[in-house]
Amino acid sequence: MNEQELLTNELLQFVGLAQMEVIPGQPVQNLQTALALVAKARDAGVQLLALPELCLSGYMIGDLWEEQSFVNDCVQAGHDLVQASQDMVLVFGNVALEPGAVGEDGRPRRYNAAWLAQNRTLVRNPWTGFDFIPKTLLPNYREFEESRHFYDLRRLALERGVNLYDLCGEHSVSIAGHAVKLGVILCEDGWGEDYGVHLVKHMASRNADLVLNLSASPYTRGKDDKRNRVFSKLASDYRTPIGYVNCIGSQNNGKTFFGFDGCSTLYNARGEIAAGAKPWCEQILTTSTTLKPSANQAAERVDTISPWASAKTELVPADVHTLVEVITRYLARARISRVVIGVSGGVDSAVSAALFTHICGPQNVLLASMPSAFNSATTKNLAHDLAQNLGCFFVEVPIGESMDLTKRQIDGLEAQSFAGNASITLSLSAFHLENVQARDRSSRILSALASAFGGVFTCNANKAEATVGYSTLYGDHGGFLAPLADLWKNEVYALGSYLNRDVFKREVIPVGIFSIKPSAELSTAQNPEQGGGDPILYAYHDRLFHAWQQAWRRSGPEEILTWYSQGILEAKLDLPRPISDWFPTAHEFIADLERWWNLFKGMGVVKRVQAPPIVALSRRAFGYDYRESIMAPYFSRNYFRIKAELLSR
Amino acid sequence: MNEQELLTNELLQFVGLAQMEVIPGQPVQNLQTALALVAKARDAGVQLLALPELCLSGYMIGDLWEEQSFVNDCVQAGHDLVQASQDMVLVFGNVALEPGAVGEDGRPRRYNAAWLAQNRTLVRNPWTGFDFIPKTLLPNYREFEESRHFYDLRRLALERGVNLYDLCGEHSVSIAGHAVKLGVILCEDGWGEDYGVHLVKHMASRNADLVLNLSASPYTRGKDDKRNRVFSKLASDYRTPIGYVNCIGSQNNGKTFFGFDGCSTLYNARGEIAAGAKPWCEQILTTSTTLKPSANQAAERVDTISPWASAKTELVPADVHTLVEVITRYLARARISRVVIGVSGGVDSAVSAALFTHICGPQNVLLASMPSAFNSATTKNLAHDLAQNLGCFFVEVPIGESMDLTKRQIDGLEAQSFAGNASITLSLSAFHLENVQARDRSSRILSALASAFGGVFTCNANKAEATVGYSTLYGDHGGFLAPLADLWKNEVYALGSYLNRDVFKREVIPVGIFSIKPSAELSTAQNPEQGGGDPILYAYHDRLFHAWQQAWRRSGPEEILTWYSQGILEAKLDLPRPISDWFPTAHEFIADLERWWNLFKGMGVVKRVQAPPIVALSRRAFGYDYRESIMAPYFSRNYFRIKAELLSR
Repeated sequence: MNEQELLTNELLQFVGLAQMEVIPGQPVQNLQTALALVAKARDAGVQLLALPELCLSGYMIGDLWEEQSFVNDCVQAGHDLVQASQDMVLVFGNVALEPGAVGEDGRPRRYNAAWLAQNRTLVRNPWTGFDFIPKTLLPNYREFEESRHFYDLRRLALERGVNLYDLCGEHSVSIAGHAVKLGVILCEDGWGEDYGVHLVKHMASRNADLVLNLSASPYTRGKDDKRNRVFSKLASDYRTPIGYVNCIGSQNNGKTFFGFDGCSTLYNARGEIAAGAKPWCEQILTTSTTLKPSANQAAERVDTISPWASAKTELVPADVHTLVEVITRYLARARISRVVIGVSGGVDSAVSAALFTHICGPQNVLLASMPSAFNSATTKNLAHDLAQNLGCFFVEVPIGESMDLTKRQIDGLEAQSFAGNASITLSLSAFHLENVQARDRSSRILSALASAFGGVFTCNANKAEATVGYSTLYGDHGGFLAPLADLWKNEVYALGSYLNRDVFKREVIPVGIFSIKPSAELSTAQNPEQGGGDPILYAYHDRLFHAWQQAWRRSGPEEILTWYSQGILEAKLDLPRPISDWFPTAHEFIADLERWWNLFKGMGVVKRVQAPPIVALSRRAFGYDYRESIMAPYFSRNYFRIKAELLSR
Repeated sequence: MNEQELLTNELLQFVGLAQMEVIPGQPVQNLQTALALVAKARDAGVQLLALPELCLSGYMIGDLWEEQSFVNDCVQAGHDLVQASQDMVLVFGNVALEPGAVGEDGRPRRYNAAWLAQNRTLVRNPWTGFDFIPKTLLPNYREFEESRHFYDLRRLALERGVNLYDLCGEHSVSIAGHAVKLGVILCEDGWGEDYGVHLVKHMASRNADLVLNLSASPYTRGKDDKRNRVFSKLASDYRTPIGYVNCIGSQNNGKTFFGFDGCSTLYNARGEIAAGAKPWCEQILTTSTTLKPSANQAAERVDTISPWASAKTELVPADVHTLVEVITRYLARARISRVVIGVSGGVDSAVSAALFTHICGPQNVLLASMPSAFNSATTKNLAHDLAQNLGCFFVEVPIGESMDLTKRQIDGLEAQSFAGNASITLSLSAFHLENVQARDRSSRILSALASAFGGVFTCNANKAEATVGYSTLYGDHGGFLAPLADLWKNEVYALGSYLNRDVFKREVIPVGIFSIKPSAELSTAQNPEQGGGDPILYAYHDRLFHAWQQAWRRSGPEEILTWYSQGILEAKLDLPRPISDWFPTAHEFIADLERWWNLFKGMGVVKRVQAPPIVALSRRAFGYDYRESIMAPYFSRNYFRIKAELLSR
């Protein structure tokens, strides 16, 4: 260990990272949280405390940024927080205004910024002349849309006609009697590879003693591991410690709920993790208080245990943790304590029931079985057993009488025309009646049960169903939240077995629910006791839809058909069986492919527009993370060429 | 007229602007449209033809940009279009790829670009070295999110470390034997004031003979007039003619449907309109074929004619035109020809019925009256008269029997708990039963009627209701489209009178519908015959909600209360009566303000997440034009100060 390293390690002992819970849109409340953490850090001997990005306003607050009285309160809260920096250096994320300047939307110019304060005074930024440090790189992909709300350092450089790196660099503060050079960056600024902007390198070249990265980074499966790799490498490449501080909590953009899991980390100048915060815990992280967390735990995948699912699941325990924390916070903030779940005896509703029972307690969960003539004894018994195992409230409300009434009122009804003497007789087909059943269950029974129970009801759709819109609008499509809609069917099975084994530590979800064939049971053809069931073949379609929607490199019909024609589809999609087991001929394979692609890009989108919010776990949840227009589905020119070739073989 | 002007005017005779209908996501189809327009232009003697921005891909296509096979087809279609440029200069908007480079999302780098071709060859861009002209300014406000999808010239300038203006300038082509200098910009590039970027000025300083602006500009009330002012001024300030070419058609981002109205315009070097295309018409605009449209027509406002509405409406005839064109295209592309509308005898459903009858014809519209014990004879008769006037199909399906069934099944139901011997008795309150009625109408009856009639059903919510979520989820909140949800109640009245007077030219909507008090008629207290009705006082709340949501300068509770305390609220909101007529005391005023603000920011958002798509007309339609998170409503510090002051007076 050389002299520089010794100095750095001494410095790190005085550093604290405040892993703070942030409530979006509540600057006054967040200020109180921040002040309490500052006091706690001071007691612990911290002399340099970093708080997360936008920790006073919240990060995902939609167009609330356009309300000036709100922004003014955030700024005022920032100044109030500065007043807590006596004998201490505070750096925190907050919005900042550039007086007299407008943003590109014509409104007062806002920055996503770091505020740096010492001894109750803002440290002037010598690089920009501002009293704050602007964020350089604004992400505009997935759920991010920062350019919508903020100006940034790159645009400022263009406006001023100067080099970007001339507008940023180290900031001098005094810590424990030492003059310390701080590099302060915000979230995306640490991930500059695709932007060709290298801020940690720049700070290191200016001899920064420490780079602080203030973040508001939503949970995505695998992201924590990736960040450890990227930031460890940056720290060791440039021999500069990095303090990464992230908030905790649940934030959303309406359609999609995200978990902020914290996982704040201090990387030393060798790139080692000097300290790591526990996920989802509000805490002051210092080198002395916290141990390095086990790095591999989050990477263990939860197995699927059903003959109806593909073997490959991506579910990890951190997903379950995120689901639970996000749902818990949503319920608490909306003051919802009771939940109604329609249980069919299938796995989706069973997992939903177990999840909410874990979160709310069985005394706050009402399970409703709503049988028709089409429901088998097997599934009815499974639903009953599930309720018994969980200890929830249970009711059975049959839908037969209502079905008869609707049929009687509509089927055969004469609609009279006022133009001429025309009239038409309305009729409901068997398919129409399937939808009538689904709507009766959700919009009539579950909605009324939720009112009467004093709560809400859930949407139990999985991601495969959500992808192709295999659900009825105002029927099983409805609900206050769709907690499983970012999990493929195999991951729902995996979540079910995880809940049994690791959460309840007993078989609350009966084993029969894992082994019965998935079915909506809306017609005699869908009787799972007789081999009937869903048209979605999850062991294949889960993987197909994943390739279409969730894989980094999208693979649409053109790519899928190319692989099929080359005989490498099984390898590409990691299928458990040869594709010909499902589709003996190219004709059948193509018909299936087009059917689902048309639904995915057609009615699927239409239905998602009116879908409940979901909890994002994967890279690409539906909603604001994956934006869609209602359009005719597209098949590429090459697709038609390959198809013609295959069908003429 | 000097020599330069003569030359310019001669040049303009050879210029054509192709106001093309663009189908989003269909490059092969759009290519065919473009080729047909090129042929038509050639026949008309056009030697320089400009087509709109992204005219092959479409503009609002969500994350379809991430599908490489789609992008490849757009590029291929571009090359196919280039092949049509023999003896002609073609410039058209299309996506362009920069080989080997990645965008900031890590995917292949895409530009929103202009392709310039002559004699079947792309004209090399001397400023960038590319074969295309990148867009400089990417809008990221309202419904726009171009930085999500595209790289741009400003970022390229930063990356290359050069001045922005060194990367753009005139392009030399040959037209009618003359060497001509073209400036080519894309949409937002012409609106650079807030960006501090002045491309028309730059092109003029480089002696451009003509600046072409290729656009994909969605309709917003008043925007066409504003563009005429801005572009006329640019043309005359810099003595350079500007050709503005916009597409026509309907595009959406899932939640919000936008109309692209064309209104392509050629401004001469004096800033005069040399030629203007008709809105919503596919055509080749040249100086010889088209007259200058009347500029003032679009600015005439349609009056409100109801005692329940405020006097001030913003509705203009172009809004109605946009509504009709957008809905027509949505129905055609979704292959929907028949529409079911629940009619209550109130104005919203009546206007919806008249609008769809105008669009689909009475033989394709089924009006359904769904009375309960709470519906007055007056409104039932009005609904019947409406159907008669329109000549639609009509049915009456009462909800009483279903209400009784739901009450019998749920109210008083014992829910047994499996934990211990607890049980609870469920009960439905009068308020719960209001929602049961609304859900029964939409999710049971209208949904089934739509199935049986072979069509869809509508959501008839107006913008005031949409703002505060005054609707029942899966009840009147549901529908395939909410065509009126960007119109305040007074604008719905105005639209109704416009349909009567200017479209049907007779009183299809009975006058009684304009004069009856708005009411949901879900309880005896809401009997409009006895003065009961909606809790929304439209003459005031329309204006209040407009200030909160739609006005350029948002005015939340802090601003409203400030104006109230200063006695200037009536002037600020343009109220027809003193506020004390509605709220005699500050206490009542504040209670009302907080009630609706809490709903607007609370349940209103929750409901909008699951709302049907709407048609955008105003500046700030709900959906992707106005982004929201589910959060606790916020009242600013100043608000509480002013409130305390007022209440202690």
